[in-house]
Amino acid sequence: MKTGFIGLGRMGRAIATRIKTAGHDLIVYNRTHDKTKELAAVGAAVATSIKEACGDSGIVVTMLSDDAALEQVAFGPGGICESSRKGTIHMVMGTHGTAAIRSAQERHAQAGQILVSAPVLGRPDVAAAGQLGVVLAGPREAAEKCRPLIDAVARRVFEAGDKPEHAAIVKLANGLVLGCAIEAMGEAFSLVRKYGVKTDVLYDVMTEGLFAAPAYKGYGKIIVDEGYTNVGFTAELGLKDIRLILGAAGAEHVPLPATHTVYNHLLSAIAHGYGGKDWSVIAHEQAQEAGLK
Amino acid sequence: MKTGFIGLGRMGRAIATRIKTAGHDLIVYNRTHDKTKELAAVGAAVATSIKEACGDSGIVVTMLSDDAALEQVAFGPGGICESSRKGTIHMVMGTHGTAAIRSAQERHAQAGQILVSAPVLGRPDVAAAGQLGVVLAGPREAAEKCRPLIDAVARRVFEAGDKPEHAAIVKLANGLVLGCAIEAMGEAFSLVRKYGVKTDVLYDVMTEGLFAAPAYKGYGKIIVDEGYTNVGFTAELGLKDIRLILGAAGAEHVPLPATHTVYNHLLSAIAHGYGGKDWSVIAHEQAQEAGLK
Amino acid sequence: MKTGFIGLGRMGRAIATRIKTAGHDLIVYNRTHDKTKELAAVGAAVATSIKEACGDSGIVVTMLSDDAALEQVAFGPGGICESSRKGTIHMVMGTHGTAAIRSAQERHAQAGQILVSAPVLGRPDVAAAGQLGVVLAGPREAAEKCRPLIDAVARRVFEAGDKPEHAAIVKLANGLVLGCAIEAMGEAFSLVRKYGVKTDVLYDVMTEGLFAAPAYKGYGKIIVDEGYTNVGFTAELGLKDIRLILGAAGAEHVPLPATHTVYNHLLSAIAHGYGGKDWSVIAHEQAQEAGLK
Amino acid sequence: MKTGFIGLGRMGRAIATRIKTAGHDLIVYNRTHDKTKELAAVGAAVATSIKEACGDSGIVVTMLSDDAALEQVAFGPGGICESSRKGTIHMVMGTHGTAAIRSAQERHAQAGQILVSAPVLGRPDVAAAGQLGVVLAGPREAAEKCRPLIDAVARRVFEAGDKPEHAAIVKLANGLVLGCAIEAMGEAFSLVRKYGVKTDVLYDVMTEGLFAAPAYKGYGKIIVDEGYTNVGFTAELGLKDIRLILGAAGAEHVPLPATHTVYNHLLSAIAHGYGGKDWSVIAHEQAQEAGLK
Repeated sequence: MKTGFIGLGRMGRAIATRIKTAGHDLIVYNRTHDKTKELAAVGAAVATSIKEACGDSGIVVTMLSDDAALEQVAFGPGGICESSRKGTIHMVMGTHGTAAIRSAQERHAQAGQILVSAPVLGRPDVAAAGQLGVVLAGPREAAEKCRPLIDAVARRVFEAGDKPEHAAIVKLANGLVLGCAIEAMGEAFSLVRKYGVKTDVLYDVMTEGLFAAPAYKGYGKIIVDEGYTNVGFTAELGLKDIRLILGAAGAEHVPLPATHTVYNHLLSAIAHGYGGKDWSVIAHEQAQEAGLK
Repeated sequence: MKTGFIGLGRMGRAIATRIKTAGHDLIVYNRTHDKTKELAAVGAAVATSIKEACGDSGIVVTMLSDDAALEQVAFGPGGICESSRKGTIHMVMGTHGTAAIRSAQERHAQAGQILVSAPVLGRPDVAAAGQLGVVLAGPREAAEKCRPLIDAVARRVFEAGDKPEHAAIVKLANGLVLGCAIEAMGEAFSLVRKYGVKTDVLYDVMTEGLFAAPAYKGYGKIIVDEGYTNVGFTAELGLKDIRLILGAAGAEHVPLPATHTVYNHLLSAIAHGYGGKDWSVIAHEQAQEAGLK
Repeated sequence: MKTGFIGLGRMGRAIATRIKTAGHDLIVYNRTHDKTKELAAVGAAVATSIKEACGDSGIVVTMLSDDAALEQVAFGPGGICESSRKGTIHMVMGTHGTAAIRSAQERHAQAGQILVSAPVLGRPDVAAAGQLGVVLAGPREAAEKCRPLIDAVARRVFEAGDKPEHAAIVKLANGLVLGCAIEAMGEAFSLVRKYGVKTDVLYDVMTEGLFAAPAYKGYGKIIVDEGYTNVGFTAELGLKDIRLILGAAGAEHVPLPATHTVYNHLLSAIAHGYGGKDWSVIAHEQAQEAGLK
Repeated sequence: MKTGFIGLGRMGRAIATRIKTAGHDLIVYNRTHDKTKELAAVGAAVATSIKEACGDSGIVVTMLSDDAALEQVAFGPGGICESSRKGTIHMVMGTHGTAAIRSAQERHAQAGQILVSAPVLGRPDVAAAGQLGVVLAGPREAAEKCRPLIDAVARRVFEAGDKPEHAAIVKLANGLVLGCAIEAMGEAFSLVRKYGVKTDVLYDVMTEGLFAAPAYKGYGKIIVDEGYTNVGFTAELGLKDIRLILGAAGAEHVPLPATHTVYNHLLSAIAHGYGGKDWSVIAHEQAQEAGLK
């Protein structure tokens, strides 16, 4: 089955390359044509419009940066919805809000199309190694059809349910837990610093004990080193995700008080000009509030 | 060198047993005499008073439940301070507040005695296996003298600094991070539940990914199972620790907004009668606030 | 100058009636025709479409319930923007978000029209008595042209600046202060109740002292009486306003931690089925969390 | 009946002077002798020890700065408890924690003495004018005996209950509401400033409307003027009170999330060196966190 792929940022390129090299018949599109070269080099067809990418594809994959891009690419003029046949599956691999996913699902359904949500866990280098986690949700049959594509990039697939929003909310919830872990480290490191303890002592205690996990090892290291210019994920992007989380929670009346502290520190960080730093810079805000230099 | 050991709760017994069986000359004391039997059985001397346990010991270890117990045992009538010689080292292995540790250090110093703080990371069964983490702080020479005892129970020693409060604050900060991790899980699990997703999907995503660590595996499991009667650490004890953390932070003017959310949920849990449940019952409070049953 | 008036809810009717009876040439429109009767009775012309209400009016006033209604009425098909001449002033009297106001201003400007924002302070009965506070902002000349209409309903006009969003943000900020006052009362009343003190003692202390003001007298009374069915403003509407506040704050990176506590309690209240109660029902949530019945 | 009065700070002097000039037989004591002169000048007897002030007094009044001072003056060597006869009434007029009041009550009871709590509402100049609010609680008969003294300084007496802690908690709860009002203003003023609105617009809206009360007029003015050196009550003292509030709430398991935001901002303010500024300087912290200069 032919597959269209739209959105060739760093993550999109890594995923599309895996899919193509796994032997799938792939046609790619990106607004900025330049980014298609890498895919052309591995033999993917390159479309010059969304319409062309969708034309006779049974599955169209998107990896887009935010809800606005999804709205435009899927439902704008010349977008996926109007360019695809009935029965086409749109597999959304970006991180999106539950409202955006629900709305997309409904409009695709009206056009006789099917939405599957398959947000990914991991960075582009993990994708390139085919080691992503993928959360998968949508109507069972459609989700099954997407599996071969997902298997090209995934170490593990987490089946979240039969509504696309099920995958979206799991991905957001995982981000919530991460934001709170970083906030907690910001608080904890500030606390020990005020008592004159070197932060690497706490780092060792955490990461060799209860918190021997990538979230703490990776972000903890950045905080200990105050290496916020070592950007994995910017504060601006962190804010975008936390907004999706708070939005999804608010819509279902779930209070998230700890997540709000993450949100507030992200706002402060950006207000202070650190929007382009790694989002663990919220630990720096915490330190400032405690009077540390 | 003879060692006194005071405080034979579950953790104290496990540690004292390891120390004795490692070959140290040990005399133990507990307010409730009954709990000394286990130690007598492995050959420890049993004192009938704190005074007797301190008499000619070079090091007196305490493993006590709270600051009030430390105050009474160390500085009450017939306590460690008045029962010990000059030069005696008091190694505190319990979790205590920084103010209590500082105050104890000062009063011991006035009596020519030395305080070393060596709080432990791990449960009694971990202690029994000699696999504890121990955070160690105090004057270097005194701390070194304590090492053979610590080595009998520790997998790893984290040297935190030359003031006893350095170890205390690291232990508290680690607890802060744990409290926030549980709070974050409470928020995240409530969120996915409101969207109709099974909690074990999120559990798998977390514990096979960024959060593949004991804190999330252990407490996450309790929350997923709503198994709050499976008590590792009660809400009442959790509240005691969070109070020590907030107290230590407040004394040095460190705001801890996420930790306050943990505190508030613990208060609610206890107000609702769950003081004796596992402290991850704060996730239940979070679920209640979101309108979940 | 002829004036169009769209949106005849309780507040809209009260304001429009004052404007008409002050002698202005008024044509009114409401989606539900029934609500125009009261205005017809005092001599207002009644339009059967937005287009008719705008036709040759120099000023078109709207009093709408939310941003979605504003979007539709002003910029939907047959809406104010396409139905009005160049130079028409659209005076928005509802409470709207700053983003909605800014967006409306820009689109009106593209059509050669002018937006003035004039949100009101007070309930419908206060409007009927001509005793509203009105916050006014927009280009000076246009704002001046609106003054005679405003004078028909206002006790006092607060000039907030030359951009319409200036008035919107002041109205929202005032609501923020109110929400926090109610939250504070919820916390304070729960606290004294737990100590066995009657809530009216605290009520008297507050309202005869530092807090001798309508916000405390009115909402404090509801809380003391637990009279949340005595609805001035529902929890659902309160949530709508708090969302506008948090949205406006987030857009400019202003952290509002106390306001988040109001938000969280509103979410809980609605999750527990109290969306239709007075929004001071957040005090009930606070009491619940403290274990009070 | 002879009355002893201990604690002649600014507030203590104002109250004692009113009591003496109302015709009561008064003997005063202050640790720093100098501050007794003002009272000697109006005819009060001056004691050189607590013992002398208590000797044959039926009521001993204290106006002390904190719980530690109360502990020392009432229960230290040569303190009120051991210096007074059975049946003596100790009327505490300072602001104290509920735990301190309860503990004092119990120890006085063991000595056959009675504690009455009568914290005051208002500043020293209000006391000098006899216009204080006084919250009164304690055993009815003893409280009645204190009334003539209170009537010398009070505009209004609020009877809170028959346990002394009833008055203490009402006074603390009133402070909670005030702290939250200041926090709310900090948030609201930051918000309008970020949108380019002058803060006095919001000040006028608040203080001529829902918030036409001393708390908003007084503290709002300081915030608008950024006049934090105009100190009514320092951030350090504010922190002391908020700690009493949080302590009293925590003891009864009442979560106070909004009050925690006040606490956190006070900690930050003091960490930044503003402990001696007016406690409304928390609005300055809020502005900083929003990136305002």
